[in-house]
Amino acid sequence: MHIKTVINIISVLLIVVALFMIFPALWALYYKEYGCFYSFNITIIMTLALSLIVFFITKSDMKKSLSTRDGFLLVSASWLLVSVDGAIPFYISGAIPSFTDAFFETMSGFTTTGASILTNIEGLPKSMLFWRSLTHWLGGMGIVVLTVAILPLLGIGGLQLIKAEAPGPTVDKITPRIGETAKLLWFIYVGFSALETILLLLGGMNLFDALTHTFGTMATGGFSTKNASIAHFNSVYIDYVITIFMVLAGINFTLHYRLLTGNFKSVLKDSELKVYLFIFFTATILLTYDLAKNHFSDIWSGLRYGSFQAATILTTTGYATYDYEKWPAMSRTVLFLLMFIGGCSGSTGGGIKIIRIYTLFKQALIEMKYLIRPKGIFTLRLSGNVVKKDIVYAISGFFFLYIAIVLAVALIISLEDIDIVTSLSSALATVGNIGPGFGRIGPTENYAFYSDFSKWVLSFAMMIGRLEIYTVLVIFTPHFWKK
Amino acid sequence: MHIKTVINIISVLLIVVALFMIFPALWALYYKEYGCFYSFNITIIMTLALSLIVFFITKSDMKKSLSTRDGFLLVSASWLLVSVDGAIPFYISGAIPSFTDAFFETMSGFTTTGASILTNIEGLPKSMLFWRSLTHWLGGMGIVVLTVAILPLLGIGGLQLIKAEAPGPTVDKITPRIGETAKLLWFIYVGFSALETILLLLGGMNLFDALTHTFGTMATGGFSTKNASIAHFNSVYIDYVITIFMVLAGINFTLHYRLLTGNFKSVLKDSELKVYLFIFFTATILLTYDLAKNHFSDIWSGLRYGSFQAATILTTTGYATYDYEKWPAMSRTVLFLLMFIGGCSGSTGGGIKIIRIYTLFKQALIEMKYLIRPKGIFTLRLSGNVVKKDIVYAISGFFFLYIAIVLAVALIISLEDIDIVTSLSSALATVGNIGPGFGRIGPTENYAFYSDFSKWVLSFAMMIGRLEIYTVLVIFTPHFWKK
Repeated sequence: MHIKTVINIISVLLIVVALFMIFPALWALYYKEYGCFYSFNITIIMTLALSLIVFFITKSDMKKSLSTRDGFLLVSASWLLVSVDGAIPFYISGAIPSFTDAFFETMSGFTTTGASILTNIEGLPKSMLFWRSLTHWLGGMGIVVLTVAILPLLGIGGLQLIKAEAPGPTVDKITPRIGETAKLLWFIYVGFSALETILLLLGGMNLFDALTHTFGTMATGGFSTKNASIAHFNSVYIDYVITIFMVLAGINFTLHYRLLTGNFKSVLKDSELKVYLFIFFTATILLTYDLAKNHFSDIWSGLRYGSFQAATILTTTGYATYDYEKWPAMSRTVLFLLMFIGGCSGSTGGGIKIIRIYTLFKQALIEMKYLIRPKGIFTLRLSGNVVKKDIVYAISGFFFLYIAIVLAVALIISLEDIDIVTSLSSALATVGNIGPGFGRIGPTENYAFYSDFSKWVLSFAMMIGRLEIYTVLVIFTPHFWKK
Repeated sequence: MHIKTVINIISVLLIVVALFMIFPALWALYYKEYGCFYSFNITIIMTLALSLIVFFITKSDMKKSLSTRDGFLLVSASWLLVSVDGAIPFYISGAIPSFTDAFFETMSGFTTTGASILTNIEGLPKSMLFWRSLTHWLGGMGIVVLTVAILPLLGIGGLQLIKAEAPGPTVDKITPRIGETAKLLWFIYVGFSALETILLLLGGMNLFDALTHTFGTMATGGFSTKNASIAHFNSVYIDYVITIFMVLAGINFTLHYRLLTGNFKSVLKDSELKVYLFIFFTATILLTYDLAKNHFSDIWSGLRYGSFQAATILTTTGYATYDYEKWPAMSRTVLFLLMFIGGCSGSTGGGIKIIRIYTLFKQALIEMKYLIRPKGIFTLRLSGNVVKKDIVYAISGFFFLYIAIVLAVALIISLEDIDIVTSLSSALATVGNIGPGFGRIGPTENYAFYSDFSKWVLSFAMMIGRLEIYTVLVIFTPHFWKK
C-alpha cells in the first residue's frame, strides 16, 4: 500500500473542502454574522495550513499509482476526515454545541442523508445553514469525483476511486479519460443546479433559500433552512419544481449527458430508467388515489402531496411538504416500501438502487425458468446487454449485506428504549441516506433524542450507506491488511 | 404434463388426511362432543368417497413418472386442497362459523404457522382443538413426504416432490431409496414426539394437552389449546421441556438420524447446526441479560423466558410464555430480527433458514476478497464441501423474493388501516410460518380483526412460505404453461 500517496491526496481533498467554506464565510459577512465569519476563517486557515504541510511532506509520493486497496482506504478515510473538518465551524461557533451533534449533522450533509439533530433549524445563523446545505451539494456528486474533475492529480487509480465513491454497481465512462468524465458529470450537475435555482427564484424564493434548497434537491439530500421544510413556502409551483428536480437528480447522470448530446436511442433503451419511472409513477398513482379518497377528498392535493412524497422518499431526498405519518395506512406502507429502493446508479440518490433491485428480480425469474427446465439456457439481460454472472454475484452479496446492516444498526440503536418502527426506520433512513422515517423520526421530527452513542452509530451507518457498504467494510476484513 | 397422474396422487393424499381425522373423531366421542363427531364423520366419508372415485377414474395413469413441473403443480394443489378439506369440520360443526376463518386456521395449521383467528381458544370443542393441533403435526414433516413414506406409489418423481415440499435448498438422501428416507424421517419425528409427550405427561399435563402441545412443538407450529398458550401451565419444567424440543425440531432431521446411528463426526462438522446453535445461544444471552437487567431483576426468570422466546421465534414455532411486547426495546428488536432467520434446512422450522443466511453471508465475505484481489480464486465451502455457484444463485434469488413477498404482503394488507408494525410483522409471521408478531398480532393477540380479503392473502402467504416460494410462484409464470 502507498499510505503516503493516500495521505497526499486526502490533503488535497481537504484543501478543496476548505476553499468551499469561503462561500458560507461570505454569507456570514453579508448577514453580519461575525462570530460565524470568524469560525469559518479559523477553520479554513487551520485546514489549509495543516493540509499544505502534509501535502508537501508527502509530495514525493504524489503521483504513484494507487492499488485497489489504496482506493478503498483513501475514499473511506477522506469521507471521515472531510466530515470531521466540516463539523468544526458548527462546533466552534457554538451553533451546534456538541461535537457529536456537529459531526452527525455534517456526515448527514456530505452523505446527502438529511437526517438532522436540530430541533430549531431557523435558530441557526444563516451562514451555518448555508454551509449545512453546501455539504449536501459537495457530497451529492462525490467529493473525490469533484477533486478528480478539478485537479488532474490522480493518474491510473482514478477510475477505481470513482468506483469506490460513486453510487451504483458499475461506472460508465462517458469519455475514455476519467478526468474528462468527472468534469462532464460535474458540469451537468452545476447546470441543473443553476436551472433549479432560477426556477425557485421565479417562484418567489430569495437567493439564499433558492440556493440552499437547490443543493438539497440536486444532491437528493433534504436539508432545508426552514423548520417546516418545503411546506414552509406553501406553494404549488415550488412543490412541483422540487418534485421534478428530485426525480431528475435520481436519474443516472450519464443518461443526462447522453440526452444533452442527442443520443436519445440509448436513453430510451435504458432498463433502469424505465423501471425507475415505472416505480415513481406507480407510487404516485397509489398515493394520489389513497390520499384523494381517504385524506384530502381532492385529487389535486392528492397528486401534489403524493408525487412529492413519492419522489422525496424514492430518490432518498427527504424533504417534507406534509406529515405523512398522519396519512392512511396504505400511503404510509407505500412510502415505507420505497425506502428499500432508492435512486438510479450514477445518480445522487442513495438506497439499494433500482438497477440492483431489478437485476435481482430478473435473476429470480430466471431461477424459476431453471426450475421448470433445468437444462435450459437463460441469460440475464439489462438494456439489451447480457449481464455477467460476476456482477449478479456482487449485487446479491450487496443486497444481503444491506439488509443485514440495516437490521444490525436497528438492533444496536434499540439498546436505547425505542420502538421497532423508530429503530428500523432510523436504520433504513440512515443506511439508505434518506433522512426522515417513521415513529419518532417522522418528517416533522428529528434525531436529537438519540444518545451520543447511537448518533455515532448512525453517522457511521450513513457513511457505510453512501459508500455502498463494500468500500467501508472491506477495510475491516483481515484479508485487507494481509500482504 | 400428466394432469391425470397428479390428480390421482392428490386423491391418495386426501385419503390419508381423511383417515387421520379418525383421531379427533375418537376424541369427540371421548369428550361426548357428538356434533363434532358427526362433523368429522361426514367429512371423512365425503372425502373418502370423492377421493376413491377420483382415484379409480385416474387409476390408469397411476404410476406414470412425473416431470418437474408436475411436481410443483402436485405439491401446490395438494396443500391447497388439503387445507380446504381440513377446514370442513371446523365449518360444518359451527366451531368456526366463517369458512374464510376456518380455511385460514387450517392453512395456518398445516403450514405450521400457528397464526389464529380464534379470540377464545378454550371455547372450541376439544376434538376440534385436537384436529387443529394435528394439522400442525401432519404439515410439519410434510404431507407429501408422509404419503411417500406410507405408500410406495411414487416412483421416479418422489425426490422431486420431496424437494418441492421439504424445507431447505437441498435434500440429503439418507438412503438411496426415497421411500426409505421418507420413512426414516417420519420415524424420527414420531420418536421425538413420543418422547416429548411422555415428558409433558410427567410435568403434570393430561394426555390431551401433552399430545396437542407436542404436535405444536415438533412441527414448530405454535397452536395451543389454551388462551394463554404455554403460560397457562405456569411451570418452569414445562417451559424448558418445550424450549428444548423446539430447538430439536429446528435441527435438520437428517442430522438427528446421523446422531442416532452414531455418525457423530458428520454432525460435528455441520456448519448449519453450528450457526443455528450460535444464533440461539447468542439471542438467549442477549435476552437474558436485557430481561434480567431491565424487566425481571432476576437472572433465572430472564433465562427461562428469554430462552423460550428465542427458541419459539427462531424455530418459527410461536408459542408464548410471556407478552414480549411489554419487554424492553432491545429484547423486542432481537426477537424481530430472529423473525428473519428461521430453522435449519430439513427441519420442521420455517423462515429463510439458517443455511441460506449463512451461505449469503459467506458469499458476501468472498465478494469482499474479490474486491481486494480481483484475480484471486476463492471458493465457498459449507461443512467442508464446496458449494456450487448454481446453488448460491438459487439462494440469492430466494432471499430477494422472500423479502419482496414479505413487503408486498405488507402492502396489500395495509389496504386496511393498520400500522406498519402490524402489517410488516403479519407479513413476516405468515410468510415465515411463525405465527405471532408485533403490534396488533402480538403473542396475546390474534388475526381475527383482519378483513376476509386480508385473511385470504395471509393464508396464501403462509402457503407460499411453507412451500419455499418457488414451488408456488413458478405456477404463475407463463413459462410454466408453455409446451
